[in-house]
Amino acid sequence: MKATQFFISTLKEAPADAEVRSHQLMMRAGMIKRLGAGIYNYMPMGLRVIRKVEAIIRDEMNRAGAVELLMPVVQPAELWQETGRFDKMGPELLRVKDRHDRDFIIQPTSEEVVTDIARQELRSYKQLPKNFYHIQTKFRDERRPRFGVMRGREFTMKDAYSFDRDPAGAAKSYDAMFTAYKRIFDRFGLAYRAVAADTGAIGGDLSHEFQVIADTGEDAIVYCPTSDYAANMELAEGVAPAGGRPAASQAMVKTPTPGKATCADVAELLGLPLSQTVKSLVMATDELNEAGDIVKATVWLLLLRGDHDLNEVKAGKVEGLKRGFRFATLAEIDEHFGCKPGYLGPIGLKKPVQVIADRTVAAMADFVCGANDVDFHYTGVNWGRDLPEPDLVVDLRNVVEGDPSPDGKGVLAIQRGIEVGHVFYLGTKYSQAMNATYLDETGKPRLMEMGCYGIGVTRILGAAIEQNHDARGIIWPEAIAPFTVVICPIGYDRSAEVKAAADALHDELRDSGIDVLLDDRGERPGAMFADWELIGVPHRVVISDRGLKDGKVEAQGRRDEAATSVPAAEIAAWVKGRVQV
Amino acid sequence: MKATQFFISTLKEAPADAEVRSHQLMMRAGMIKRLGAGIYNYMPMGLRVIRKVEAIIRDEMNRAGAVELLMPVVQPAELWQETGRFDKMGPELLRVKDRHDRDFIIQPTSEEVVTDIARQELRSYKQLPKNFYHIQTKFRDERRPRFGVMRGREFTMKDAYSFDRDPAGAAKSYDAMFTAYKRIFDRFGLAYRAVAADTGAIGGDLSHEFQVIADTGEDAIVYCPTSDYAANMELAEGVAPAGGRPAASQAMVKTPTPGKATCADVAELLGLPLSQTVKSLVMATDELNEAGDIVKATVWLLLLRGDHDLNEVKAGKVEGLKRGFRFATLAEIDEHFGCKPGYLGPIGLKKPVQVIADRTVAAMADFVCGANDVDFHYTGVNWGRDLPEPDLVVDLRNVVEGDPSPDGKGVLAIQRGIEVGHVFYLGTKYSQAMNATYLDETGKPRLMEMGCYGIGVTRILGAAIEQNHDARGIIWPEAIAPFTVVICPIGYDRSAEVKAAADALHDELRDSGIDVLLDDRGERPGAMFADWELIGVPHRVVISDRGLKDGKVEAQGRRDEAATSVPAAEIAAWVKGRVQV
Repeated sequence: MKATQFFISTLKEAPADAEVRSHQLMMRAGMIKRLGAGIYNYMPMGLRVIRKVEAIIRDEMNRAGAVELLMPVVQPAELWQETGRFDKMGPELLRVKDRHDRDFIIQPTSEEVVTDIARQELRSYKQLPKNFYHIQTKFRDERRPRFGVMRGREFTMKDAYSFDRDPAGAAKSYDAMFTAYKRIFDRFGLAYRAVAADTGAIGGDLSHEFQVIADTGEDAIVYCPTSDYAANMELAEGVAPAGGRPAASQAMVKTPTPGKATCADVAELLGLPLSQTVKSLVMATDELNEAGDIVKATVWLLLLRGDHDLNEVKAGKVEGLKRGFRFATLAEIDEHFGCKPGYLGPIGLKKPVQVIADRTVAAMADFVCGANDVDFHYTGVNWGRDLPEPDLVVDLRNVVEGDPSPDGKGVLAIQRGIEVGHVFYLGTKYSQAMNATYLDETGKPRLMEMGCYGIGVTRILGAAIEQNHDARGIIWPEAIAPFTVVICPIGYDRSAEVKAAADALHDELRDSGIDVLLDDRGERPGAMFADWELIGVPHRVVISDRGLKDGKVEAQGRRDEAATSVPAAEIAAWVKGRVQV
Repeated sequence: MKATQFFISTLKEAPADAEVRSHQLMMRAGMIKRLGAGIYNYMPMGLRVIRKVEAIIRDEMNRAGAVELLMPVVQPAELWQETGRFDKMGPELLRVKDRHDRDFIIQPTSEEVVTDIARQELRSYKQLPKNFYHIQTKFRDERRPRFGVMRGREFTMKDAYSFDRDPAGAAKSYDAMFTAYKRIFDRFGLAYRAVAADTGAIGGDLSHEFQVIADTGEDAIVYCPTSDYAANMELAEGVAPAGGRPAASQAMVKTPTPGKATCADVAELLGLPLSQTVKSLVMATDELNEAGDIVKATVWLLLLRGDHDLNEVKAGKVEGLKRGFRFATLAEIDEHFGCKPGYLGPIGLKKPVQVIADRTVAAMADFVCGANDVDFHYTGVNWGRDLPEPDLVVDLRNVVEGDPSPDGKGVLAIQRGIEVGHVFYLGTKYSQAMNATYLDETGKPRLMEMGCYGIGVTRILGAAIEQNHDARGIIWPEAIAPFTVVICPIGYDRSAEVKAAADALHDELRDSGIDVLLDDRGERPGAMFADWELIGVPHRVVISDRGLKDGKVEAQGRRDEAATSVPAAEIAAWVKGRVQV
């Protein structure tokens, strides 16, 4: 293709509302154009990337046996009322009334519609398993859309839904999708990790996020560099320290810590490592009557090592906390501890509370904790001797770098990531709500076991750029670059030699199936090179009279420090040897 | 592909609400599945056709120099308020409010958004011409959605918009699109006509509809079999009969026609051809004051030959009728004609009216018309002698078969058609409303000249089927068939020979780039053949033990009366020789 037959529109400056690098670069490179908050036009340059991303996804989904269909953007509310999501989903769900005042929604996903299809179409066990997917426009009315395509309101998603006879079948379907996703992300050419994620109320261990690694990512990814272990922060297991609890070696002493209301301050005052302290978090749960009034509040003491943070998802799995918990009020704290926050601890309670210790805390000896007396802490505290063993010992905390890997094969590291894919075992959540059954061999109706599998197509663009850019612009992986090769002739309209060489190279590469663009816009070399570095095309060939005089052209990869001088006669073969077709 | 890896779902009966053949067949063939009124899931079989249609469109649009982008489905109301369409468009425009109570619309087309892009991006004459297109989901909240994908609410459309410096440039862009559309419809393999259409308020002659020929089409297409003339019924010109008005040969006689209030009844009574009668249509126009009250009504007499029908679009172009007209009331008729309808005519008016005669009427002699006296008509009426020449002679009627072609190269024929594409010169309608200007060579801002070019992607499916089906099902043109070839093995799971031959043929055709499906479902031959005839795959190869014993397989085109016996060893070559790749 020639540039003048295409549409190229680059900007020197990114608009002020572009907060993150990928958003800035996509705007500057003319990939997207803002239409409204979280709503973008995909300009020709950006659309080319989307199409390549979609083609890879489609290819691997088909290979994995999934079947493509297309479900509507505007969906009748009835189905969403069947599952209760029409009411349960907040304002993120865009609701609309048609001319007859009937309710519709703009789809954020398609569980309801695909389950409706399945319950009508998949009537026999002989038709299972089946996996339907589509690549379609979605809308989520985010409260605060931002980061360009990373948290937009309108976006393109590939969502797939598998239907199986039983959990074992669903696990197989899940594995097939997991494998397909790995192939997809491998083909994108992005550094990523598939990390185990929390399955929430569904249970089981079949949930993985596909995270594109980027320093700027919103998510913390936990992994073990010496094993396959990888999980998101919500799920990553904090194991008890190897070797168990050391023996007590100190006496418990009530120590004055005037004005030192944080573990860090106490540790500093006492000259002890922060990891020797224990922090006390006081939570409360409410029991409601049918009218929704609070009839009883229960207070819980959560103990974490001073340098650790509470993982609310893990706390939410503790029996008694599952239905939601909150920070205790000052009154509730005073009632149970007879003290104000900053000096709280598990010893000498005024009124009993449930004590839940993180695994690490349960394995500590000679630790420091609040004394339930303002300006005092205990030092040298030991379980069993100075206070009873905790009521419950569980994993309550976020893991940290250097923690032992749960698989026992090394220590944990943490990276930042951007979630761009998710595979998830749904069980019978939707099939039950919508009575999606099939008949088994005995003619008995049974609920279908479902899984869902999403990839944020447009989000891939943002994530790829967050991972791959430099001061000059985007650096696309070859498989999803808008063009693979750009030919930059200097003096295309002045020099017959340059024009002939550029045209010949263009035609030869194009005919070899290489996605090549010839920049015939007549820009000055500096502006032209800057454009293509901003846009991030992986390979550039510069053809000039000066070079041709010596029979040479210059080739440079987007990540190369300098250009390589290549004999003009060999340039096509040279390029072909370096690009994937 | 193998059938068991795909999804095939056929029905014996079409649902009761499927009124037209294409809707019935698409439902029965499992191409679409109803989700709500005018909202369909495109099932895997239907989506394959859509993708082929889209690919052809994309290919030819790109070849014609158009550039693809993607504009959002959910669009901010502000732009639609700029052009006034937010208020002017009726309930067809689906309006929605986001969580912040801001107005949005679900796009029915994208003139506003593309013009917004153009006014920001196309700033210099050097950037023109430019043609942007996208293939995107549209929504029109039809009052009465029906005919399946032919008049759905959610549908896929390709819409392109050209931007030019001046009308001459716009005409060139228009021609390029016209040519591209012809290539597109040729490649679809559909019988179609590009017919001139009315340009309405824009004026000019740059509007063509692309009509797929089908007996069941809603539109009447007028064409000349011996020339290139083709127009839709709204526009097709009715010319005056050759030879002009004959000389008067009869005396005018007031003739009793008791109870004969229609031209047909009068002609029958008098033993004259209907074409010797003239019918009188009495219309009125209202002049309103600023408050919108009627301050003056004007009455018009429109004269048409008894066997001709009024063309309201043509009447609406008459000066004085342009702002709309209505049938006159009985009181108005009595006031001017002193008679009730059924016996009205242009002779002996009680109060003068504007007389507008169709060209054919103006060329009549010795004609019959009402005498403005109940139960009487005049016969032998002649212009000039018996009544003044009409105030205005214009083309007022729908043309009929056998009319002279306006290009003088034959006579007109009429076909039914389904409009699936439209190319239209917009002029500055949108660029003016949205101030979309570019700077010319002198630095002066000038409005861009626009054109718009649509193809109803999903509608193509319905139109193709209306044109191509028989009692057994759909007959897809090869280029847009869901599969080009289906291999139907008999006893695939029983006979190793059949399986080997079927697999080998499948692999060879697939590797030659032919879109082939092997039906490995294990259906009985009758059911299997019925499915593929219903689905409409163009080529079928049946492989059976019985045939293989004689070294033969059977090949049959979807339109063939009978199968052809082909030597098994030659079947791949035989198929390859018959399909486009």
